[in-house]
Amino acid sequence: MRDIVIGMSDGLTVPFALAAGLSSISNSTNIVITGGLAEIAAGSIAMGLGGYLAAKSDAEHYANERAMEQRQMDSIPESEFAEVEQVFLSYGLGKDQSIVATNALRQNPVVWIDFMMRNELGLEKPDPKRALSSALTIGLSYIAGGLVPLAPYILFHTAGTALEFSVALTLVALWIFGYVKGRFTGSPPLRSAMQTALIGGLAAAVAFGLAKLISG
Amino acid sequence: MRDIVIGMSDGLTVPFALAAGLSSISNSTNIVITGGLAEIAAGSIAMGLGGYLAAKSDAEHYANERAMEQRQMDSIPESEFAEVEQVFLSYGLGKDQSIVATNALRQNPVVWIDFMMRNELGLEKPDPKRALSSALTIGLSYIAGGLVPLAPYILFHTAGTALEFSVALTLVALWIFGYVKGRFTGSPPLRSAMQTALIGGLAAAVAFGLAKLISG
Repeated sequence: MRDIVIGMSDGLTVPFALAAGLSSISNSTNIVITGGLAEIAAGSIAMGLGGYLAAKSDAEHYANERAMEQRQMDSIPESEFAEVEQVFLSYGLGKDQSIVATNALRQNPVVWIDFMMRNELGLEKPDPKRALSSALTIGLSYIAGGLVPLAPYILFHTAGTALEFSVALTLVALWIFGYVKGRFTGSPPLRSAMQTALIGGLAAAVAFGLAKLISG
Repeated sequence: MRDIVIGMSDGLTVPFALAAGLSSISNSTNIVITGGLAEIAAGSIAMGLGGYLAAKSDAEHYANERAMEQRQMDSIPESEFAEVEQVFLSYGLGKDQSIVATNALRQNPVVWIDFMMRNELGLEKPDPKRALSSALTIGLSYIAGGLVPLAPYILFHTAGTALEFSVALTLVALWIFGYVKGRFTGSPPLRSAMQTALIGGLAAAVAFGLAKLISG
């Protein structure tokens, strides 16, 4: 769900704003469609592949930190022992209780390292299978989102008319998307709907105004 | 650092690819510059504000879950007690040790909830001040990154020549950026440099090819 949100909110917003910007400098829908599709292709590749590599790099970071904990456990066990004791002390256990708890953890090195990763470093184990599905979901959501604001430019022949339909259609889509997003993430849905439509509308207005300004 | 990476890698990639796509359909650099700047405005707003709201929503999610743990602790303390005991048991402590450790945690309700958030729900407390600085950093990094591929289109008057310089300049920038990113995130810098340049190059090639194809 988080990946769909990431891909679709940018997909609905950026191609929408770019199309609005391009339509302000040319009455031909060809340039808007070509620019819009080029943006969707670039954006979905950048976000999808970028997300894939970021997930891979998170997994690597976790593995590196874990290997370091492992090495420290082998080479300076007493110092690691003291660190775990410190974690228990910070949770309010007494000195004796902390030693007992630490000794218990020590019986199982895998659990010990899990405990250190989470309670000393604050790192959760990343899901190794997530990188690929995350990349595909983000990329496809971006494409799906991006085709919504472009559709009117494909259906209508004058950029001005298409822009009006694109604004109406996309604001409705952003509103619905924001509402659904709110339901899933636990934010108040109406506020989420409003915010999502506002960001998209603001981005499109700035892009339109800037393009108009530059092209004189 | 993570925010600069997020903003700049998309900023270098998407406006670069879009400019390449637009330059394939028009020999006028005006359209490329206008479209590119519109994209940078839209992208920086979408990513910056989007990042701000995502950080806010993470903080809200954490606060909601924490409030729920608090309510459970007040209304069904025995069941919460059993959950904490279960966490200690899963870490390898014996039954008696788990009860002792759980009783110790119970003395301090704030620490108890911290422990549950981290060890039962796997949630780290988000930094409340991060949302705004994160939004600004992502947005500004996107703008800084996006101006690199556009600069040649401002300096040269034919889109073809500008495209060649833009490709060369941006690939070098992506390479350097990927190298520095690798140094900071702990990935092998040369591999990171190669990957970053490849994603940017691929996105630009697809955008260019797609635009050429559509415009016939």
